[in-house]
Amino acid sequence: MRIAILGYGVVGSGVAEVLKINAAQVAKKAGESGESIDVKYILDTRDFPGEDQKSKFIKNFEEIERDPEIKIVAECIGGETTAYDFAKRAILAGKHVVTPNKALIAAHGAELFALAKERGVHLLFEASVGGGIPLIRPFCGALLTDEVQEIAGILNGTSNYILTQMNDNGKSYDNALKSAQELGYAEADPTADVGGFDACRKLSILLSLATGKTVDYKDIPTEGIEKITADDFAFAAENGYTLKHLAIAKISAGGVQAVVAPFLVKIGHPMSTVSDVYNALWARAKTTGSVMFYGSGAGKLPTASAVVSNLVDIAQNACAAHIWTAERVKILPAEGFAMKKTFRIYEG
Amino acid sequence: MRIAILGYGVVGSGVAEVLKINAAQVAKKAGESGESIDVKYILDTRDFPGEDQKSKFIKNFEEIERDPEIKIVAECIGGETTAYDFAKRAILAGKHVVTPNKALIAAHGAELFALAKERGVHLLFEASVGGGIPLIRPFCGALLTDEVQEIAGILNGTSNYILTQMNDNGKSYDNALKSAQELGYAEADPTADVGGFDACRKLSILLSLATGKTVDYKDIPTEGIEKITADDFAFAAENGYTLKHLAIAKISAGGVQAVVAPFLVKIGHPMSTVSDVYNALWARAKTTGSVMFYGSGAGKLPTASAVVSNLVDIAQNACAAHIWTAERVKILPAEGFAMKKTFRIYEG
Repeated sequence: MRIAILGYGVVGSGVAEVLKINAAQVAKKAGESGESIDVKYILDTRDFPGEDQKSKFIKNFEEIERDPEIKIVAECIGGETTAYDFAKRAILAGKHVVTPNKALIAAHGAELFALAKERGVHLLFEASVGGGIPLIRPFCGALLTDEVQEIAGILNGTSNYILTQMNDNGKSYDNALKSAQELGYAEADPTADVGGFDACRKLSILLSLATGKTVDYKDIPTEGIEKITADDFAFAAENGYTLKHLAIAKISAGGVQAVVAPFLVKIGHPMSTVSDVYNALWARAKTTGSVMFYGSGAGKLPTASAVVSNLVDIAQNACAAHIWTAERVKILPAEGFAMKKTFRIYEG
Repeated sequence: MRIAILGYGVVGSGVAEVLKINAAQVAKKAGESGESIDVKYILDTRDFPGEDQKSKFIKNFEEIERDPEIKIVAECIGGETTAYDFAKRAILAGKHVVTPNKALIAAHGAELFALAKERGVHLLFEASVGGGIPLIRPFCGALLTDEVQEIAGILNGTSNYILTQMNDNGKSYDNALKSAQELGYAEADPTADVGGFDACRKLSILLSLATGKTVDYKDIPTEGIEKITADDFAFAAENGYTLKHLAIAKISAGGVQAVVAPFLVKIGHPMSTVSDVYNALWARAKTTGSVMFYGSGAGKLPTASAVVSNLVDIAQNACAAHIWTAERVKILPAEGFAMKKTFRIYEG
């Protein structure tokens, strides 16, 4: 199975790297179905003079689109414009698409899934929520055969790092953000992370999967972590809590409630131990009960590992069709949380 | 897709119940591939006069074996004798087999997987490790495309309940065991649980998956929880730890080390928060990093939900072949743990 990697940034180069590091494991798993996975093209507009795979680099997507040898396209460009154009064209050309791109899936999921189904190819996105945590697979494969009633995620590593620094080391919000930026965890403009919009997009993907319809992330009330102070952490600790930034949804016959906001989480609850850049998803389903998936929510190699695992899924032909329709779910304000001071309490 | 349930005990009746409770979700997920799941037979030697599915009950396995309409057999008899006979005959008759039976998979995995591959059917066992936690799916689908280096599991709910009672409520081992028995968590002879043998079998399944060869659970040094005292918990707490019964393995070029024993776990580590009858699996892989899967390790409905999720996997044709050979892995004694008093320290 020959593949093309689109975009040789952090994740794209990570995919190439993981395919080398884990060559033996990938060959073994894919080989169980008689397949192998080989990178034929790497598409990027930039030049990478030092790279040893030089002959694979190309600048024109048409070459990939027209090459019948290419079975899978790993879209690692990011964003919603070029990524959308190339993903759509790849599917139309009968190629499977694998992507870590939450913005693409959140914005264009319904259309791309329908197209993929029509063309008989897969569109897989394990890395789009929870980075390296293999959670889309068990969420779809197990929890969606059950009735998902509640979801609570720590879905943004940058925010969680900042809150951990404030909680454990008594840093102010500004100092914690500064150290996150120094370590490369936060961008110069950190709004998407600390404002909750990244977590909100990820929640919309989980909710779209759970409802089978489109949940527009713009419909989910979203609060960031910018206003949290050292005093808030002192107050939380005095009462046996810590503060975590949660993306929460409740699904019932009455509708879908959702909110992204800081929550008080009881110390000793598994979600209270999710620190630094780690992420976690807590979910409760009717007969399965409560489950939690925990791991590296971001980072080059963990995220790339999740992309590679999807390549192997396709090689093994071991993937269910994921699909949601364009019908838009009405999101209700999330209510009924007990409060302390100005904070909602998470009772998961 | 018509199925047969073998054994109408706790899990078998749970499977029938979950198929009713989650009928809409199961129909939707299976229906995405145009399939439905209907129970045609329930095999049990006993009579169930009050049951409303009376017409489905049969006592003769041959009826199932010979019925070409039956595509999947859900083996919920337990043990290694009748379960093995029926599972093998079902596979030979060209039927997929789904089972929560860890004893069956641990003892006969290599033979049954090879047979299933030969006959072009699946043998799925999500519920055999971790009960209701969907962990086999992400373990095989994601972590095995990477290099798994360490596994640490809290894999027995009964033991974990007893340790939680001793830690949180200051109970003696005997009193905690007694309350576990009163609640139905522990059997009259609790040896398989408190002696660590149940956890050991589950570890052997995970290690067989990770190595692709057979790990005989009898080769894994196994210590139970029977000798832990209230003093040990006091000592652990004074030093910032709690005691957990862990099934641990380290896999490296040098070989496979494994041990099942009580470990000191730092308070605040996610594994320290796994309480009562909950289970968790912590794993570290080379590029994915550390992940944890947490949930209900036992219980009628969670375990049955995992069995049902495997039925849907087959309906969706979304399952990779799991396989390990009969070649037996040499298990080395697990070494290199820091110690406090007589306890190993878990540094995960």
